[in-house]
Amino acid sequence: MSKIVAFQGIAGAYSEQAIREFFGTQVESSAHATLEDIFLAVESGAAHYGMLPVENAVAGSVNRSYQLLMEHDLRIHAEVVLRVRHMLMAPPGTDFDAIERVRSHPQALAQCQRYLERRGFVAEPAFDTAGAARDLSGGPEPGIAVIASGLAADLYGLEILDQDVEDYEFNYTRFFALALESPPRAPRSKTSIIFTTPHQPGALYDCMGEFAKRHINLSKIESRPRLNRPWQYIFYLDFEGHCQDTACEAAIMGLLRRSSFVKLLGSYPAATTPVPDGGPIG
Amino acid sequence: MSKIVAFQGIAGAYSEQAIREFFGTQVESSAHATLEDIFLAVESGAAHYGMLPVENAVAGSVNRSYQLLMEHDLRIHAEVVLRVRHMLMAPPGTDFDAIERVRSHPQALAQCQRYLERRGFVAEPAFDTAGAARDLSGGPEPGIAVIASGLAADLYGLEILDQDVEDYEFNYTRFFALALESPPRAPRSKTSIIFTTPHQPGALYDCMGEFAKRHINLSKIESRPRLNRPWQYIFYLDFEGHCQDTACEAAIMGLLRRSSFVKLLGSYPAATTPVPDGGPIG
Repeated sequence: MSKIVAFQGIAGAYSEQAIREFFGTQVESSAHATLEDIFLAVESGAAHYGMLPVENAVAGSVNRSYQLLMEHDLRIHAEVVLRVRHMLMAPPGTDFDAIERVRSHPQALAQCQRYLERRGFVAEPAFDTAGAARDLSGGPEPGIAVIASGLAADLYGLEILDQDVEDYEFNYTRFFALALESPPRAPRSKTSIIFTTPHQPGALYDCMGEFAKRHINLSKIESRPRLNRPWQYIFYLDFEGHCQDTACEAAIMGLLRRSSFVKLLGSYPAATTPVPDGGPIG
Repeated sequence: MSKIVAFQGIAGAYSEQAIREFFGTQVESSAHATLEDIFLAVESGAAHYGMLPVENAVAGSVNRSYQLLMEHDLRIHAEVVLRVRHMLMAPPGTDFDAIERVRSHPQALAQCQRYLERRGFVAEPAFDTAGAARDLSGGPEPGIAVIASGLAADLYGLEILDQDVEDYEFNYTRFFALALESPPRAPRSKTSIIFTTPHQPGALYDCMGEFAKRHINLSKIESRPRLNRPWQYIFYLDFEGHCQDTACEAAIMGLLRRSSFVKLLGSYPAATTPVPDGGPIG
Protein backbone atom coordinates (compact mmCIF):
# COMPACT_ATOMS: atom_id res chain seq x y z
CA MET A 1 0.00 0.00 0.00
CA SER A 2 1.37 3.39 -0.87
CA LYS A 3 1.82 6.04 1.80
CA ILE A 4 -0.77 8.80 2.05
CA VAL A 5 0.27 12.45 2.46
CA ALA A 6 -2.30 15.06 3.52
CA PHE A 7 -2.19 18.64 2.27
CA GLN A 8 -4.43 21.71 2.35
CA GLY A 9 -5.98 22.79 -0.94
CA ILE A 10 -7.23 20.96 -3.98
CA ALA A 11 -5.38 18.66 -6.36
CA GLY A 12 -2.61 20.59 -8.13
CA ALA A 13 -2.01 23.05 -5.26
CA TYR A 14 1.59 24.08 -4.61
CA SER A 15 1.49 21.96 -1.45
CA GLU A 16 0.83 18.93 -3.60
CA GLN A 17 3.70 19.95 -5.85
CA ALA A 18 5.89 19.94 -2.71
CA ILE A 19 4.65 16.40 -1.95
CA ARG A 20 5.62 15.25 -5.46
CA GLU A 21 9.06 16.83 -5.27
CA PHE A 22 9.84 15.42 -1.85
CA PHE A 23 8.08 12.04 -1.75
CA GLY A 24 8.06 11.33 -5.49
CA THR A 25 5.19 9.72 -7.33
CA GLN A 26 4.92 6.63 -5.12
CA VAL A 27 2.75 8.33 -2.51
CA GLU A 28 -0.92 9.16 -2.66
CA SER A 29 -1.78 12.75 -1.78
CA SER A 30 -5.02 13.56 0.01
CA ALA A 31 -6.61 17.01 -0.28
CA HIS A 32 -8.12 18.78 2.75
CA ALA A 33 -10.02 22.02 3.27
CA THR A 34 -8.05 23.51 6.18
CA LEU A 35 -4.54 23.43 7.65
CA GLU A 36 -5.98 21.86 10.80
CA ASP A 37 -7.36 18.98 8.73
CA ILE A 38 -3.75 18.05 7.90
CA PHE A 39 -3.09 17.45 11.61
CA LEU A 40 -6.35 15.57 12.10
CA ALA A 41 -5.63 13.31 9.11
CA VAL A 42 -2.21 12.31 10.46
CA GLU A 43 -3.44 11.94 14.05
CA SER A 44 -6.32 9.68 13.03
CA GLY A 45 -4.10 7.52 10.86
CA ALA A 46 -5.98 8.51 7.70
CA ALA A 47 -2.66 9.87 6.39
CA HIS A 48 0.95 8.85 7.11
CA TYR A 49 2.35 12.35 6.60
CA GLY A 50 1.12 15.92 6.32
CA MET A 51 2.67 18.68 4.21
CA LEU A 52 2.36 21.93 6.17
CA PRO A 53 3.45 25.32 4.74
CA VAL A 54 5.32 27.27 7.44
CA GLU A 55 7.13 30.09 5.68
CA ASN A 56 7.01 31.97 2.41
CA ALA A 57 9.64 34.30 0.96
CA VAL A 58 7.05 36.91 0.06
CA ALA A 59 4.46 36.59 2.79
CA GLY A 60 6.65 35.58 5.76
CA SER A 61 5.95 32.89 8.35
CA VAL A 62 2.54 31.27 8.32
CA ASN A 63 1.44 32.09 11.84
CA ARG A 64 -1.57 29.82 11.70
CA SER A 65 0.68 26.83 10.99
CA TYR A 66 2.78 27.58 14.08
CA GLN A 67 -0.37 27.92 16.18
CA LEU A 68 -1.42 24.45 15.02
CA LEU A 69 2.06 23.05 15.72
CA MET A 70 1.59 24.38 19.27
CA GLU A 71 -1.88 22.88 19.72
CA HIS A 72 -1.09 19.48 18.24
CA ASP A 73 1.68 17.01 18.93
CA LEU A 74 2.98 15.83 15.59
CA ARG A 75 6.68 15.60 14.81
CA ILE A 76 8.57 17.15 11.93
CA HIS A 77 9.64 14.35 9.64
CA ALA A 78 11.49 16.62 7.19
CA GLU A 79 11.70 20.16 5.91
CA VAL A 80 10.86 20.72 2.26
CA VAL A 81 11.68 23.89 0.34
CA LEU A 82 9.64 24.42 -2.81
CA ARG A 83 10.64 27.01 -5.34
CA VAL A 84 7.25 28.46 -6.35
CA ARG A 85 7.10 28.67 -10.14
CA HIS A 86 3.94 30.19 -11.55
CA MET A 87 2.84 28.93 -14.97
CA LEU A 88 0.39 30.50 -17.37
CA MET A 89 -1.88 27.79 -18.76
CA ALA A 90 -4.98 27.32 -20.91
CA PRO A 91 -6.81 24.47 -22.69
CA PRO A 92 -4.65 22.82 -25.41
CA GLY A 93 -4.65 24.70 -28.69
CA THR A 94 -5.34 28.10 -27.12
CA ASP A 95 -3.63 30.90 -29.03
CA PHE A 96 -1.44 32.98 -26.71
CA ASP A 97 -2.48 36.17 -28.51
CA ALA A 98 -6.15 35.44 -27.90
CA ILE A 99 -5.74 35.58 -24.11
CA GLU A 100 -7.36 38.58 -22.49
CA ARG A 101 -8.07 37.59 -18.90
CA VAL A 102 -6.07 35.58 -16.38
CA ARG A 103 -7.56 33.91 -13.31
CA SER A 104 -5.81 32.89 -10.10
CA HIS A 105 -5.62 33.44 -6.35
CA PRO A 106 -5.18 37.18 -5.66
CA GLN A 107 -1.79 36.54 -4.05
CA ALA A 108 -0.51 34.66 -7.09
CA LEU A 109 -1.86 37.40 -9.35
CA ALA A 110 -0.11 40.00 -7.19
CA GLN A 111 3.17 38.08 -7.57
CA CYS A 112 2.77 38.28 -11.36
CA GLN A 113 1.47 41.85 -11.47
CA ARG A 114 4.19 43.28 -13.72
CA TYR A 115 3.96 40.35 -16.09
CA LEU A 116 0.19 40.79 -16.40
CA GLU A 117 0.53 44.53 -16.99
CA ARG A 118 3.24 44.06 -19.59
CA ARG A 119 1.04 41.66 -21.53
CA GLY A 120 -2.11 43.73 -21.03
CA PHE A 121 -3.92 40.84 -19.33
CA VAL A 122 -6.86 41.59 -17.04
CA ALA A 123 -6.57 39.73 -13.70
CA GLU A 124 -9.56 37.91 -12.24
CA PRO A 125 -9.68 36.53 -8.68
CA ALA A 126 -10.22 32.86 -7.90
CA PHE A 127 -10.21 30.90 -4.62
CA ASP A 128 -7.02 29.11 -5.39
CA THR A 129 -4.56 28.56 -8.19
CA ALA A 130 -5.37 24.88 -8.71
CA GLY A 131 -9.12 25.45 -8.50
CA ALA A 132 -8.90 28.03 -11.27
CA ALA A 133 -7.07 25.45 -13.42
CA ARG A 134 -9.61 22.72 -12.64
CA ASP A 135 -12.57 24.99 -13.44
CA LEU A 136 -11.11 26.24 -16.70
CA SER A 137 -10.37 22.67 -17.73
CA GLY A 138 -13.93 21.62 -16.91
CA GLY A 139 -15.50 24.56 -18.72
CA PRO A 140 -13.15 26.21 -21.21
CA GLU A 141 -13.91 29.86 -22.02
CA PRO A 142 -12.35 31.74 -24.92
CA GLY A 143 -9.76 34.36 -23.97
CA ILE A 144 -9.20 32.96 -20.46
CA ALA A 145 -5.98 31.58 -19.01
CA VAL A 146 -4.97 30.60 -15.47
CA ILE A 147 -1.87 30.98 -13.32
CA ALA A 148 -1.13 27.85 -11.31
CA SER A 149 1.53 25.18 -10.69
CA GLY A 150 3.02 22.95 -13.37
CA LEU A 151 1.38 20.05 -11.54
CA ALA A 152 -2.05 21.66 -11.99
CA ALA A 153 -1.43 21.89 -15.75
CA ASP A 154 -0.55 18.17 -15.78
CA LEU A 155 -3.51 17.09 -13.68
CA TYR A 156 -6.12 19.11 -15.51
CA GLY A 157 -4.76 18.65 -19.03
CA LEU A 158 -3.97 22.30 -19.60
CA GLU A 159 -1.17 23.52 -21.83
CA ILE A 160 1.58 25.71 -20.34
CA LEU A 161 1.78 28.84 -22.51
CA ASP A 162 4.39 30.69 -20.47
CA GLN A 163 6.71 29.56 -17.65
CA ASP A 164 7.91 31.36 -14.53
CA VAL A 165 5.65 34.35 -14.94
CA GLU A 166 6.32 35.61 -11.38
CA ASP A 167 7.90 39.07 -11.11
CA TYR A 168 10.48 37.98 -8.53
CA GLU A 169 12.17 34.66 -8.91
CA PHE A 170 13.08 34.48 -5.23
CA ASN A 171 9.78 32.90 -4.33
CA TYR A 172 9.89 29.76 -2.23
CA THR A 173 7.67 28.14 0.32
CA ARG A 174 9.10 26.12 3.19
CA PHE A 175 7.06 23.17 4.42
CA PHE A 176 7.30 20.78 7.33
CA ALA A 177 6.43 17.20 6.43
CA LEU A 178 4.68 16.04 9.62
CA ALA A 179 4.30 12.54 11.05
CA LEU A 180 3.34 10.80 14.28
CA GLU A 181 6.89 9.63 14.91
CA SER A 182 10.31 11.24 14.65
CA PRO A 183 12.42 10.28 11.63
CA PRO A 184 15.67 8.31 11.93
CA ARG A 185 18.63 10.47 12.90
CA ALA A 186 20.25 12.06 9.83
CA PRO A 187 23.90 13.04 9.34
CA ARG A 188 22.94 16.72 8.96
CA SER A 189 20.01 17.48 11.22
CA LYS A 190 18.07 20.53 12.18
CA THR A 191 15.80 20.99 15.18
CA SER A 192 12.77 23.25 15.55
CA ILE A 193 11.33 24.38 18.87
CA ILE A 194 8.75 26.83 20.19
CA PHE A 195 9.35 28.45 23.57
CA THR A 196 8.34 31.36 25.76
CA THR A 197 10.55 33.40 28.05
CA PRO A 198 9.82 34.76 31.49
CA HIS A 199 8.73 38.38 31.49
CA GLN A 200 12.03 39.95 32.48
CA PRO A 201 14.66 42.00 30.66
CA GLY A 202 17.43 39.99 29.10
CA ALA A 203 15.49 36.71 29.27
CA LEU A 204 15.66 36.02 25.53
CA TYR A 205 19.32 36.94 25.46
CA ASP A 206 20.02 34.48 28.28
CA CYS A 207 18.05 31.78 26.45
CA MET A 208 20.08 32.35 23.30
CA GLY A 209 23.24 32.16 25.37
CA GLU A 210 22.44 28.47 25.97
CA PHE A 211 23.03 27.94 22.24
CA ALA A 212 25.84 30.45 21.73
CA LYS A 213 28.03 29.07 24.50
CA ARG A 214 27.76 25.60 22.95
CA HIS A 215 28.51 26.92 19.44
CA ILE A 216 25.14 25.76 18.15
CA ASN A 217 24.12 27.68 15.05
CA LEU A 218 20.63 29.13 14.84
CA SER A 219 18.93 29.24 11.47
CA LYS A 220 15.66 30.95 12.39
CA ILE A 221 14.39 33.10 15.20
CA GLU A 222 11.08 34.85 15.35
CA SER A 223 9.04 36.48 18.11
CA ARG A 224 5.26 36.56 18.13
CA PRO A 225 2.92 38.15 20.62
CA ARG A 226 1.14 35.40 22.52
CA LEU A 227 -2.55 35.03 21.67
CA ASN A 228 -4.75 36.82 24.18
CA ARG A 229 -1.85 37.22 26.58
CA PRO A 230 -0.48 40.73 26.41
CA TRP A 231 3.10 41.08 27.68
CA GLN A 232 3.97 37.57 26.61
CA TYR A 233 5.83 36.37 23.57
CA ILE A 234 6.34 33.11 21.78
CA PHE A 235 9.53 32.31 19.91
CA TYR A 236 10.04 30.08 16.90
CA LEU A 237 13.61 28.83 16.85
CA ASP A 238 15.45 26.53 14.45
CA PHE A 239 18.97 25.37 15.08
CA GLU A 240 21.53 23.05 13.54
CA GLY A 241 21.91 19.68 15.17
CA HIS A 242 19.81 16.85 16.58
CA CYS A 243 18.02 16.96 19.91
CA GLN A 244 19.99 13.87 20.94
CA ASP A 245 23.35 15.52 20.28
CA THR A 246 25.04 16.13 23.63
CA ALA A 247 25.41 19.88 23.07
CA CYS A 248 21.86 20.31 21.78
CA GLU A 249 20.47 18.29 24.64
CA ALA A 250 22.29 20.48 27.13
CA ALA A 251 21.10 23.66 25.38
CA ILE A 252 17.48 22.47 25.42
CA MET A 253 17.77 21.58 29.10
CA GLY A 254 19.29 25.01 29.82
CA LEU A 255 16.45 26.63 27.92
CA LEU A 256 13.86 24.62 29.84
CA ARG A 257 15.32 25.82 33.13
CA ARG A 258 14.99 29.45 31.96
CA SER A 259 11.73 29.55 30.04
CA SER A 260 8.13 28.89 30.98
CA PHE A 261 7.90 26.17 28.37
CA VAL A 262 9.69 24.57 25.46
CA LYS A 263 7.91 22.58 22.80
CA LEU A 264 10.07 20.32 20.67
CA LEU A 265 8.64 20.18 17.14
CA GLY A 266 11.26 17.72 16.04
CA SER A 267 14.74 16.98 14.73
CA TYR A 268 14.85 16.21 11.05
CA PRO A 269 17.20 16.05 8.05
CA ALA A 270 18.07 19.56 6.84
CA ALA A 271 16.94 20.37 3.31
CA THR A 272 19.82 20.35 0.87
CA THR A 273 18.80 23.53 -0.92
CA PRO A 274 20.92 26.52 0.09
CA VAL A 275 17.83 28.76 0.21
CA PRO A 276 16.07 29.81 2.39
CA ASP A 277 18.06 28.23 5.07
CA GLY A 278 21.64 28.37 4.16
CA GLY A 279 23.58 28.57 7.33
CA PRO A 280 24.12 29.93 10.77
CA ILE A 281 22.61 33.22 11.80
CA GLY A 282 24.99 33.20 14.72
CA MET B 1 -5.10 72.08 3.31
CA SER B 2 -5.66 68.71 4.87
CA LYS B 3 -2.86 66.17 5.03
CA ILE B 4 -2.84 63.30 2.53
CA VAL B 5 -2.19 59.72 3.60
CA ALA B 6 -1.38 57.06 0.99
CA PHE B 7 -2.47 53.44 1.36
CA GLN B 8 -2.57 50.31 -0.78
CA GLY B 9 -5.99 49.08 -1.84
CA ILE B 10 -9.23 50.75 -2.76
CA ALA B 11 -11.42 53.04 -0.67
CA GLY B 12 -12.75 51.17 2.35
CA ALA B 13 -9.75 48.81 2.64
CA TYR B 14 -8.61 47.92 6.15
CA SER B 15 -5.57 50.14 5.58
CA GLU B 16 -7.89 53.09 5.12
CA GLN B 17 -9.70 52.10 8.30
CA ALA B 18 -6.32 52.27 10.06
CA ILE B 19 -5.85 55.78 8.64
CA ARG B 20 -9.25 56.86 10.01
CA GLU B 21 -8.56 55.38 13.44
CA PHE B 22 -5.12 56.94 13.73
CA PHE B 23 -5.36 60.26 11.88
CA GLY B 24 -9.10 60.87 12.32
CA THR B 25 -11.34 62.30 9.65
CA GLN B 26 -9.32 65.45 9.02
CA VAL B 27 -6.93 63.77 6.58
CA GLU B 28 -7.52 62.82 3.00
CA SER B 29 -6.63 59.22 2.13
CA SER B 30 -5.26 58.36 -1.29
CA ALA B 31 -5.62 54.85 -2.72
CA HIS B 32 -2.76 53.14 -4.58
CA ALA B 33 -2.37 49.86 -6.43
CA THR B 34 0.82 48.50 -4.81
CA LEU B 35 2.74 48.73 -1.55
CA GLU B 36 5.62 50.35 -3.42
CA ASP B 37 3.27 53.13 -4.60
CA ILE B 38 2.89 54.16 -0.95
CA PHE B 39 6.63 54.89 -0.79
CA LEU B 40 6.62 56.69 -4.15
CA ALA B 41 3.69 58.88 -3.10
CA VAL B 42 5.43 60.02 0.08
CA GLU B 43 8.81 60.46 -1.61
CA SER B 44 7.34 62.59 -4.40
CA GLY B 45 5.41 64.76 -1.97
CA ALA B 46 2.07 63.61 -3.40
CA ALA B 47 1.25 62.33 0.11
CA HIS B 48 2.39 63.48 3.56
CA TYR B 49 2.18 60.03 5.11
CA GLY B 50 1.88 56.42 4.02
CA MET B 51 0.09 53.63 5.92
CA LEU B 52 2.11 50.43 5.45
CA PRO B 53 0.95 47.04 6.83
CA VAL B 54 3.93 45.23 8.38
CA GLU B 55 2.50 42.42 10.48
CA ASN B 56 -0.68 40.43 10.86
CA ALA B 57 -1.66 38.16 13.72
CA VAL B 58 -2.80 35.41 11.36
CA ALA B 59 -0.45 35.74 8.41
CA GLY B 60 2.72 36.94 10.16
CA SER B 61 5.12 39.68 9.06
CA VAL B 62 4.59 41.17 5.61
CA ASN B 63 7.97 40.44 4.10
CA ARG B 64 7.35 42.60 1.07
CA SER B 65 6.84 45.63 3.31
CA TYR B 66 10.19 45.05 5.00
CA GLN B 67 11.88 44.66 1.62
CA LEU B 68 10.47 48.06 0.63
CA LEU B 69 11.57 49.59 3.94
CA MET B 70 15.07 48.37 3.05
CA GLU B 71 15.02 49.75 -0.48
CA HIS B 72 13.53 53.14 0.39
CA ASP B 73 14.49 55.73 2.98
CA LEU B 74 11.29 56.84 4.66
CA ARG B 75 10.99 57.17 8.43
CA ILE B 76 8.44 55.60 10.73
CA HIS B 77 6.21 58.36 12.01
CA ALA B 78 4.10 56.08 14.22
CA GLU B 79 2.99 52.51 14.69
CA VAL B 80 -0.71 51.80 14.36
CA VAL B 81 -2.40 48.61 15.50
CA LEU B 82 -5.76 47.88 13.92
CA ARG B 83 -8.06 45.26 15.31
CA VAL B 84 -9.44 43.68 12.13
CA ARG B 85 -13.20 43.34 12.49
CA HIS B 86 -14.97 41.67 9.59
CA MET B 87 -18.54 42.80 8.89
CA LEU B 88 -21.20 41.06 6.82
CA MET B 89 -22.96 43.65 4.67
CA ALA B 90 -25.50 43.95 1.85
CA PRO B 91 -27.61 46.66 0.21
CA PRO B 92 -30.07 48.30 2.65
CA GLY B 93 -33.25 46.32 3.15
CA THR B 94 -31.65 42.96 2.35
CA ASP B 95 -33.25 40.15 4.35
CA PHE B 96 -30.58 38.23 6.29
CA ASP B 97 -32.39 34.95 5.60
CA ALA B 98 -32.28 35.57 1.86
CA ILE B 99 -28.47 35.57 1.77
CA GLU B 100 -26.97 32.56 0.05
CA ARG B 101 -23.54 33.63 -1.15
CA VAL B 102 -20.85 35.80 0.45
CA ARG B 103 -18.05 37.51 -1.48
CA SER B 104 -14.68 38.70 -0.20
CA HIS B 105 -10.92 38.26 -0.48
CA PRO B 106 -10.05 34.57 -0.02
CA GLN B 107 -8.03 35.37 3.10
CA ALA B 108 -10.97 37.20 4.73
CA LEU B 109 -13.28 34.34 3.75
CA ALA B 110 -10.82 31.88 5.30
CA GLN B 111 -10.84 33.89 8.53
CA CYS B 112 -14.63 33.56 8.65
CA GLN B 113 -14.79 29.95 7.47
CA ARG B 114 -16.62 28.55 10.51
CA TYR B 115 -19.11 31.39 10.49
CA LEU B 116 -19.87 30.82 6.81
CA GLU B 117 -20.28 27.08 7.35
CA ARG B 118 -22.54 27.56 10.34
CA ARG B 119 -24.81 29.83 8.34
CA GLY B 120 -24.67 27.67 5.23
CA PHE B 121 -23.31 30.52 3.11
CA VAL B 122 -21.39 29.77 -0.07
CA ALA B 123 -18.14 31.71 -0.27
CA GLU B 124 -17.12 33.49 -3.49
CA PRO B 125 -13.66 34.96 -4.12
CA ALA B 126 -13.07 38.65 -4.86
CA PHE B 127 -9.90 40.70 -5.34
CA ASP B 128 -10.31 42.57 -2.12
CA THR B 129 -12.79 43.13 0.66
CA ALA B 130 -13.55 46.77 -0.18
CA GLY B 131 -13.81 46.08 -3.91
CA ALA B 132 -16.43 43.42 -3.24
CA ALA B 133 -18.42 45.99 -1.23
CA ARG B 134 -18.07 48.65 -3.93
CA ASP B 135 -19.15 46.26 -6.68
CA LEU B 136 -22.16 44.95 -4.78
CA SER B 137 -23.21 48.51 -4.01
CA GLY B 138 -22.89 49.47 -7.68
CA GLY B 139 -24.80 46.43 -8.90
CA PRO B 140 -26.88 44.74 -6.21
CA GLU B 141 -27.67 41.06 -6.75
CA PRO B 142 -30.26 39.15 -4.76
CA GLY B 143 -28.91 36.66 -2.25
CA ILE B 144 -25.40 38.19 -2.19
CA ALA B 145 -23.59 39.71 0.77
CA VAL B 146 -20.00 40.84 1.27
CA ILE B 147 -17.44 40.63 4.07
CA ALA B 148 -15.47 43.87 4.46
CA SER B 149 -14.60 46.63 6.94
CA GLY B 150 -17.15 48.83 8.68
CA LEU B 151 -15.65 51.73 6.75
CA ALA B 152 -16.47 50.00 3.45
CA ALA B 153 -20.12 49.66 4.56
CA ASP B 154 -20.16 53.40 5.31
CA LEU B 155 -18.49 54.44 2.09
CA TYR B 156 -20.59 52.30 -0.20
CA GLY B 157 -23.91 52.68 1.59
CA LEU B 158 -24.24 49.02 2.55
CA GLU B 159 -26.04 47.83 5.64
CA ILE B 160 -24.14 45.79 8.24
CA LEU B 161 -26.13 42.61 8.81
CA ASP B 162 -23.72 40.92 11.19
CA GLN B 163 -20.68 42.20 13.08
CA ASP B 164 -17.37 40.54 13.94
CA VAL B 165 -17.96 37.47 11.84
CA GLU B 166 -14.30 36.33 12.07
CA ASP B 167 -13.70 32.96 13.71
CA TYR B 168 -10.86 34.20 15.92
CA GLU B 169 -11.12 37.58 17.53
CA PHE B 170 -7.39 37.91 17.96
CA ASN B 171 -6.95 39.40 14.50
CA TYR B 172 -4.98 42.60 14.26
CA THR B 173 -2.78 44.22 11.66
CA ARG B 174 0.16 46.37 12.65
CA PHE B 175 1.02 49.29 10.38
CA PHE B 176 3.84 51.78 10.17
CA ALA B 177 2.72 55.30 9.32
CA LEU B 178 5.61 56.50 7.14
CA ALA B 179 6.86 60.04 6.47
CA LEU B 180 9.88 61.83 5.04
CA GLU B 181 10.92 63.15 8.44
CA SER B 182 11.15 61.64 11.92
CA PRO B 183 8.39 62.57 14.37
CA PRO B 184 9.03 64.67 17.51
CA ARG B 185 10.44 62.64 20.38
CA ALA B 186 7.67 61.01 22.42
CA PRO B 187 7.71 60.14 26.14
CA ARG B 188 7.32 56.43 25.33
CA SER B 189 9.22 55.65 22.16
CA LYS B 190 10.04 52.57 20.20
CA THR B 191 12.73 52.13 17.58
CA SER B 192 12.78 49.75 14.59
CA ILE B 193 15.93 48.68 12.77
CA ILE B 194 16.98 46.19 10.12
CA PHE B 195 20.47 44.70 10.32
CA THR B 196 22.62 41.83 9.12
CA THR B 197 25.22 39.93 11.07
CA PRO B 198 28.59 38.65 9.94
CA HIS B 199 28.58 35.00 8.99
CA GLN B 200 30.05 33.56 12.16
CA PRO B 201 28.65 31.54 15.07
CA GLY B 202 27.39 33.62 17.97
CA ALA B 203 27.19 36.82 15.91
CA LEU B 204 23.49 37.41 16.56
CA TYR B 205 23.93 36.61 20.22
CA ASP B 206 26.71 39.18 20.46
CA CYS B 207 24.54 41.77 18.67
CA MET B 208 21.72 41.16 21.11
CA GLY B 209 24.16 41.54 23.96
CA GLU B 210 24.53 45.20 22.97
CA PHE B 211 20.91 45.64 24.04
CA ALA B 212 20.84 43.21 26.96
CA LYS B 213 23.83 44.76 28.73
CA ARG B 214 22.12 48.17 28.57
CA HIS B 215 18.79 46.74 29.79
CA ILE B 216 17.04 47.76 26.58
CA ASN B 217 13.90 45.72 26.04
CA LEU B 218 13.31 44.14 22.66
CA SER B 219 9.74 43.86 21.42
CA LYS B 220 10.28 42.08 18.10
CA ILE B 221 12.98 39.97 16.54
CA GLU B 222 12.76 38.11 13.30
CA SER B 223 15.29 36.51 10.97
CA ARG B 224 14.83 36.28 7.23
CA PRO B 225 17.06 34.69 4.62
CA ARG B 226 18.62 37.44 2.54
CA LEU B 227 17.28 37.65 -1.02
CA ASN B 228 19.53 35.87 -3.48
CA ARG B 229 22.31 35.65 -0.91
CA PRO B 230 22.44 32.19 0.56
CA TRP B 231 24.17 32.02 3.95
CA GLN B 232 23.10 35.51 4.87
CA TYR B 233 20.28 36.68 7.06
CA ILE B 234 18.46 39.89 7.70
CA PHE B 235 16.99 40.74 11.10
CA TYR B 236 14.01 42.89 11.92
CA LEU B 237 14.38 44.27 15.44
CA ASP B 238 12.15 46.55 17.50
CA PHE B 239 13.21 47.84 20.90
CA GLU B 240 11.89 50.20 23.54
CA GLY B 241 13.45 53.65 23.61
CA HIS B 242 14.48 56.42 21.26
CA CYS B 243 17.57 56.35 19.04
CA GLN B 244 18.73 59.55 20.76
CA ASP B 245 18.57 58.00 24.24
CA THR B 246 22.12 57.55 25.49
CA ALA B 247 21.74 53.80 26.06
CA CYS B 248 20.01 53.21 22.71
CA GLU B 249 22.61 55.26 20.88
CA ALA B 250 25.39 53.21 22.46
CA ALA B 251 23.62 49.95 21.59
CA ILE B 252 23.13 50.99 17.97
CA MET B 253 26.80 52.02 17.74
CA GLY B 254 27.80 48.69 19.27
CA LEU B 255 25.62 46.90 16.74
CA LEU B 256 27.13 48.87 13.86
CA ARG B 257 30.62 47.81 14.92
CA ARG B 258 29.55 44.15 14.89
CA SER B 259 27.25 43.88 11.89
CA SER B 260 27.68 44.44 8.17
CA PHE B 261 24.97 47.07 8.18
CA VAL B 262 22.26 48.65 10.28
CA LYS B 263 19.30 50.49 8.81
CA LEU B 264 17.39 52.75 11.16
CA LEU B 265 13.73 52.75 10.19
CA GLY B 266 12.88 55.26 12.87
CA SER B 267 12.01 56.07 16.46
CA TYR B 268 8.33 56.74 17.04
CA PRO B 269 5.66 56.87 19.74
CA ALA B 270 4.70 53.35 20.87
CA ALA B 271 1.10 52.39 20.22
CA THR B 272 -0.95 52.44 23.41
CA THR B 273 -2.74 49.17 22.73
CA PRO B 274 -1.36 46.29 24.80
CA VAL B 275 -1.58 43.97 21.80
CA PRO B 276 0.37 42.91 19.78
CA ASP B 277 3.24 44.65 21.33
CA GLY B 278 2.77 44.65 25.00
CA GLY B 279 6.16 44.57 26.54
CA PRO B 280 9.68 43.33 26.66
CA ILE B 281 10.63 40.04 25.13
CA GLY B 282 13.82 40.13 27.15
